Amino acid sequence: MRSKILELLRSKHGNCISGAEIASQLGVSRTAVWKHINELKSAGYHIESKARSGYCLLECPDKLLPELVKHNLSTSFMGQNVISYEDIPSTNNEAKVLAAQGAVEGTVVVSEAQSTGKGRLERSFFCPAGGLWFSVILRPDFLPQEAPKCTLMSAVAVARAMRDMGLDAGIKWPNDIYCQGRKLTGILTEMSGEMDRINYLVVGIGINANIPLESFPEDIKDKAGSMSGILGHDIDRVVFLQKILTYMENLYVDVLKNGFDWALDQWREYSITLGQLIDVVGVQEKFAGVAEDIDEDGALLVRTDTGLRRVLAGDVSIRPR
Amino acid sequence: MRSKILELLRSKHGNCISGAEIASQLGVSRTAVWKHINELKSAGYHIESKARSGYCLLECPDKLLPELVKHNLSTSFMGQNVISYEDIPSTNNEAKVLAAQGAVEGTVVVSEAQSTGKGRLERSFFCPAGGLWFSVILRPDFLPQEAPKCTLMSAVAVARAMRDMGLDAGIKWPNDIYCQGRKLTGILTEMSGEMDRINYLVVGIGINANIPLESFPEDIKDKAGSMSGILGHDIDRVVFLQKILTYMENLYVDVLKNGFDWALDQWREYSITLGQLIDVVGVQEKFAGVAEDIDEDGALLVRTDTGLRRVLAGDVSIRPR
Repeated sequence: MRSKILELLRSKHGNCISGAEIASQLGVSRTAVWKHINELKSAGYHIESKARSGYCLLECPDKLLPELVKHNLSTSFMGQNVISYEDIPSTNNEAKVLAAQGAVEGTVVVSEAQSTGKGRLERSFFCPAGGLWFSVILRPDFLPQEAPKCTLMSAVAVARAMRDMGLDAGIKWPNDIYCQGRKLTGILTEMSGEMDRINYLVVGIGINANIPLESFPEDIKDKAGSMSGILGHDIDRVVFLQKILTYMENLYVDVLKNGFDWALDQWREYSITLGQLIDVVGVQEKFAGVAEDIDEDGALLVRTDTGLRRVLAGDVSIRPR
Repeated sequence: MRSKILELLRSKHGNCISGAEIASQLGVSRTAVWKHINELKSAGYHIESKARSGYCLLECPDKLLPELVKHNLSTSFMGQNVISYEDIPSTNNEAKVLAAQGAVEGTVVVSEAQSTGKGRLERSFFCPAGGLWFSVILRPDFLPQEAPKCTLMSAVAVARAMRDMGLDAGIKWPNDIYCQGRKLTGILTEMSGEMDRINYLVVGIGINANIPLESFPEDIKDKAGSMSGILGHDIDRVVFLQKILTYMENLYVDVLKNGFDWALDQWREYSITLGQLIDVVGVQEKFAGVAEDIDEDGALLVRTDTGLRRVLAGDVSIRPR
């Protein structure tokens, strides 16, 4: 009902609609309308109540609320179920619980801030308000070893959406998004599965959207950046999230239907790692070489003095030219 | 305290020990001793109380109780933390919850019966009382794609323990244990992880130990067997479980330290699949060939008319000669 009332208010483009008209169009009492309007107000919607002409929506809150994310979202399942929070420890943890309970594919958990956001290998991740912190539940008919496809595909979706917003974004293997030498995004994919099938994947995406550069902690100040910091203005996070979800769905559906080639080609196109001299720090090894390609499994192929090496996990740093 | 009192009773090998002596040896009151003895009795221990001579342990219950499983268990971590149930829906589900909460490596969840036991791909699995239904929590420093190593290694441990009990057990790829053409064991390994590390593995092992053949449901009657059915007598499930846990720990520690070769060689030795003409029913394909070997990732290598094929998932049936 709340979404329907909001829809009606929005359809007036800032003009008023009377409580009586809302009540009659939606078949509820005027008291119910009044109650829902008050709820919307306390959720942050700026709604003016005028004595004779009714209600008028002046501004939506700058929040990633379900009804805002889903408004005009053209996907068929990605982001069609949204659960939003003001501040939770970790959207990935919440999404894992929901996935285990059977949440539908494409469910999105989003939070304005995360108190214990984390990156790969339990590394902590700074997740203040203004950023875009969300997790998507996927249930691909994949073997566990194919799971990295979803991470790579998600990185492509984010990079594309960032380019739409005017940023020259590129992907550093495996799944960090960089712009002007600064890291803007981290992706942490978690999985639950058996040996020959995935039960669910949770793709956690953290994006430094509207975060003033001066608010970054000292230790990451030189390496991290934000979209607003580079663009010089805040972005509309709802529009941006919708773009990501749309690109993710397109890529995902294509990967499931036609295989990984198209997504992989786009990953290659956006890559800032391929062709570069890199240092690889793996679990038990350290070596340098030229990043030549990635393969179907998402492994990085590195040309070294002793031959081609296949890197499945590890950290990569690109040597400045 | 309960375990300590039990230990004292056991040390007398069926002879009596007075309440006063137990109380003084363990530094507790005689009332406390009396209370614990009563608890042991209601847990199924057959303890005789004699007027002047004290308590005498006549028989331990035929249950997989933690104090029985851990008694004289020579492992350093495998099975040193045991949680036992009379009847739970699934030991794997319980173990997954415990693992997510941080349960130590080697934790065993065991249940006398499982109401919704399942095999691979959500297939149901008949788990009545008398069987051995347990799950082990592992936290190997592996990539997710290496997880099948733990399944194969567990199959080897079970097959070895069964041979110790006098059964000519063999492994059918990937992880079923057969004897005299009948399936005695299923293993379902579940995993939680990121793209480049495993958070935890739960290896669920279901063994038809002491189950009368006539109690099997109609649809599996011709294919399933039980240890007692083949041997003609019941086995000591505690001793058998201890053997499995000991072999599992040996293999696991070796795999972590020296790699997968030794475990793989044993798997090959116990295999009833290798060298046979088999039919493979995969997710999208069906073909026949000769099972030639398995590789480091646990994939079955099948020689077909058109070349060597690598089978990572699917069902395999062995053609009768």
